[in-house]
Amino acid sequence: MANPNRLISDVSQHLPFGEKRDTRFYGMNIVSVEQFDRDDLDTIFAVAREMRLMVERVGSFDLLKGKVLANLFYESSTRTSSSFAAAIQRLGGSVLQINNVTFSSVSKGEVLEDTIRTMESYSDAIVLRHPEEGSAAIAAGIANKPIINAGDGPGEHPTQALLDMFTILEELGHINGLTITMLGDLKYGRTVHSLARLLALFDVKLHFVAPDILRMPSTLVEQLKARGMLPCEHVNFAEVLPETDVLYVTRVQRERFEDPSMYERVKGSYVITPETMKSAKERMIVIHPLPRVDEISMQFDNDPRAAYFRQMEYGLYVRMALLALVLGKA
Amino acid sequence: MANPNRLISDVSQHLPFGEKRDTRFYGMNIVSVEQFDRDDLDTIFAVAREMRLMVERVGSFDLLKGKVLANLFYESSTRTSSSFAAAIQRLGGSVLQINNVTFSSVSKGEVLEDTIRTMESYSDAIVLRHPEEGSAAIAAGIANKPIINAGDGPGEHPTQALLDMFTILEELGHINGLTITMLGDLKYGRTVHSLARLLALFDVKLHFVAPDILRMPSTLVEQLKARGMLPCEHVNFAEVLPETDVLYVTRVQRERFEDPSMYERVKGSYVITPETMKSAKERMIVIHPLPRVDEISMQFDNDPRAAYFRQMEYGLYVRMALLALVLGKA
Amino acid sequence: MANPNRLISDVSQHLPFGEKRDTRFYGMNIVSVEQFDRDDLDTIFAVAREMRLMVERVGSFDLLKGKVLANLFYESSTRTSSSFAAAIQRLGGSVLQINNVTFSSVSKGEVLEDTIRTMESYSDAIVLRHPEEGSAAIAAGIANKPIINAGDGPGEHPTQALLDMFTILEELGHINGLTITMLGDLKYGRTVHSLARLLALFDVKLHFVAPDILRMPSTLVEQLKARGMLPCEHVNFAEVLPETDVLYVTRVQRERFEDPSMYERVKGSYVITPETMKSAKERMIVIHPLPRVDEISMQFDNDPRAAYFRQMEYGLYVRMALLALVLGKA
Repeated sequence: MANPNRLISDVSQHLPFGEKRDTRFYGMNIVSVEQFDRDDLDTIFAVAREMRLMVERVGSFDLLKGKVLANLFYESSTRTSSSFAAAIQRLGGSVLQINNVTFSSVSKGEVLEDTIRTMESYSDAIVLRHPEEGSAAIAAGIANKPIINAGDGPGEHPTQALLDMFTILEELGHINGLTITMLGDLKYGRTVHSLARLLALFDVKLHFVAPDILRMPSTLVEQLKARGMLPCEHVNFAEVLPETDVLYVTRVQRERFEDPSMYERVKGSYVITPETMKSAKERMIVIHPLPRVDEISMQFDNDPRAAYFRQMEYGLYVRMALLALVLGKA
Repeated sequence: MANPNRLISDVSQHLPFGEKRDTRFYGMNIVSVEQFDRDDLDTIFAVAREMRLMVERVGSFDLLKGKVLANLFYESSTRTSSSFAAAIQRLGGSVLQINNVTFSSVSKGEVLEDTIRTMESYSDAIVLRHPEEGSAAIAAGIANKPIINAGDGPGEHPTQALLDMFTILEELGHINGLTITMLGDLKYGRTVHSLARLLALFDVKLHFVAPDILRMPSTLVEQLKARGMLPCEHVNFAEVLPETDVLYVTRVQRERFEDPSMYERVKGSYVITPETMKSAKERMIVIHPLPRVDEISMQFDNDPRAAYFRQMEYGLYVRMALLALVLGKA
Repeated sequence: MANPNRLISDVSQHLPFGEKRDTRFYGMNIVSVEQFDRDDLDTIFAVAREMRLMVERVGSFDLLKGKVLANLFYESSTRTSSSFAAAIQRLGGSVLQINNVTFSSVSKGEVLEDTIRTMESYSDAIVLRHPEEGSAAIAAGIANKPIINAGDGPGEHPTQALLDMFTILEELGHINGLTITMLGDLKYGRTVHSLARLLALFDVKLHFVAPDILRMPSTLVEQLKARGMLPCEHVNFAEVLPETDVLYVTRVQRERFEDPSMYERVKGSYVITPETMKSAKERMIVIHPLPRVDEISMQFDNDPRAAYFRQMEYGLYVRMALLALVLGKA
């Protein structure tokens, strides 16, 4: 279809004649975890594993040489933004980094659609972080280049869910049959919502452990049940820890509580320490989307089960894989 | 001439023996549109057209591999800054991005001259955006590396005028013989001033359409007349639209008006919509320096005559051409 | 030793089989000038000289192709940050630029240790600028990738001292036997402290010229004496200028003085101008860590003895050398 706004409406013009690509992912927007089936996940994780091997062996390689990634961040998130920047750089490409503070056109009243059209004029793909739910879908609707959602407010953060799952897979070897416990703020925690949805594609046992006011939203619990899951809800962390294979810790934020003493009591009951982890299995992992504050003690960092720093490296490989896939080079 | 401030006073030392280059542009500063004659424009646009073909075919290539561009922005302008960053990256080079907010030495009282000397120690060329008129000329006077003016306050923004003209050329095939209408705020609009001056090198018909308080400055009108142009001034947009080949729309800013009701009336009379464009030719283009706010309706975006998004891509090619030329590689 | 926090605990996995490297520097943290002996300096400066030759000849080369440098700046310092960014780029690598204003996790309460672990997940080395003394040592203690201290508050800024010394060496051909005068604020001037310590490895004559309230700290003077130096302290600049080979000028800041009239008097007595430099040798150099404000007149900039702009280029070469050394490629 001819597009009047673009000189180059068919991205395949960028590719040398005869080049092979995964046609499912080429040019795809990554907006929501809902768009993936088991086959998609198998592909993404297989490519991510190749990326891991290549980075461990040679550090970087020129798979996406010459590609320009726009990192368009309306909110600060250095971890996510650096992860994508490193991903394109380790594949031989480069990054246009746009941080909210410097985006003058926005302060002049430019709509998201025009900003997206601007950045896609210069780049081959756009990573978008935006505070409003649905913004990634709007961007994907307007853009001719792939949009990767790096968090749209209370909406989704699909690459985080993918890296969480890849961490589990690489650390424990499989997903099916695992007991996965999500702990902390399950009401507002975007990352646990997305991961829970993605886990519904597998056969796992889910435990949700949260204080009453921060329980997993009932609509999400119902959705999971409709997909055949039987998540159990708990307030007490100790009762599920011994059987847990994956403990997903999230931060309980003070500002969620009206009563400060309630916060202090709740917070204290969910802290991961060498002591509280004594009843856990020897072969299990603790993951966390980071940043962590007090909810995991630094004394636990050297425990082999502490996978939250390795998790960031897995994130690099997942993002390298996604970039390679949507740019048709995987 | 030996320069006591520089270890490397002759940039040609950077070039392999026997390398060909366009000697007119090599090492040149791009400060003002006034420095170009028709031959210069022919060269710039011929190189820009090659850049377009190369980007459409392969995306990026290594013409400026290893070159480092300093993007020194004392004011935010993500569109311009990203355009130059993408230009050097698509030519295989890299960018040092300096945004005003982080330039601590300036807040410690460093003069522009010292900042320029700093950045040229590290880079091969400097793109400068600065709020003060004449700053680009000051920088060019002190630097041994090429300076590209990316806007010096009420002064000039020569690469914008070049990309505006390249857009016209690529979209309509020629400049001579066209009827070009500039609309909106012609008093403060730096980009229309520069483009009008550049158009004086050609045989075109110019219409200026503006509310009385935002008319084109009479000194500029006199200069254009002295160069043989006969621009016509209008208040009513409808009377010149039917004969217009290029409609250059600019934003009328509320803060220019003392009387808000006057602003509302003026603003409303210059809005581009599918409706107001009914009397325009079928083969003509609407361009705009962006960002746009209300002066062009989003309903018009899918009209083939809406060239303002394609204009940004043309800008990329023009900036790639300028970098290649001043760095002696075109 | 197996490290539970890292997938890749042995950086040598990144290197092709059989690659040669300087084993002393490979993987080293650059935290303090105290860690270097004469042999180390000889190595660093020999590599820096090679870098100079290569940059003068070809501008850039691919020694560190594929390497990713994290430029982690908790304080703004565009000069230092751009210098490291240009250094890695001219060696074919790329940079993750993190400026304090955008580091959201820090504002969420993340400790330095976790931020370091994040950035080393993505990068091959980290340049750290942080306002707190000792922060570079903390980072070096936790990281598996090399940390380069780019200033830790009142602590050290070792790469500045190395570039100061390399400037002297390149400009005057040797260090031993020189008379070196440090002028201005010697109490708070981190760079003069580090350079003085580094000079203790050589046989030089040191003069310290400062107003009484800004004298070199007596503890440092004692340390230098314990190492066999005999620094002389002065208030009057004119009495040591004629014998000076290297004049290190620093800025006297108004906020150090309780009495503004005292500041004006002191400031005026230490200004470098063509006039005040009349009694200096013909072959000597003036250096300055920059930014300068009033302490060196712009009228002196074209004097061949004004080495402070060349000093920034020497800094680029020293930083290129350090990156190549710690990444095992020199």
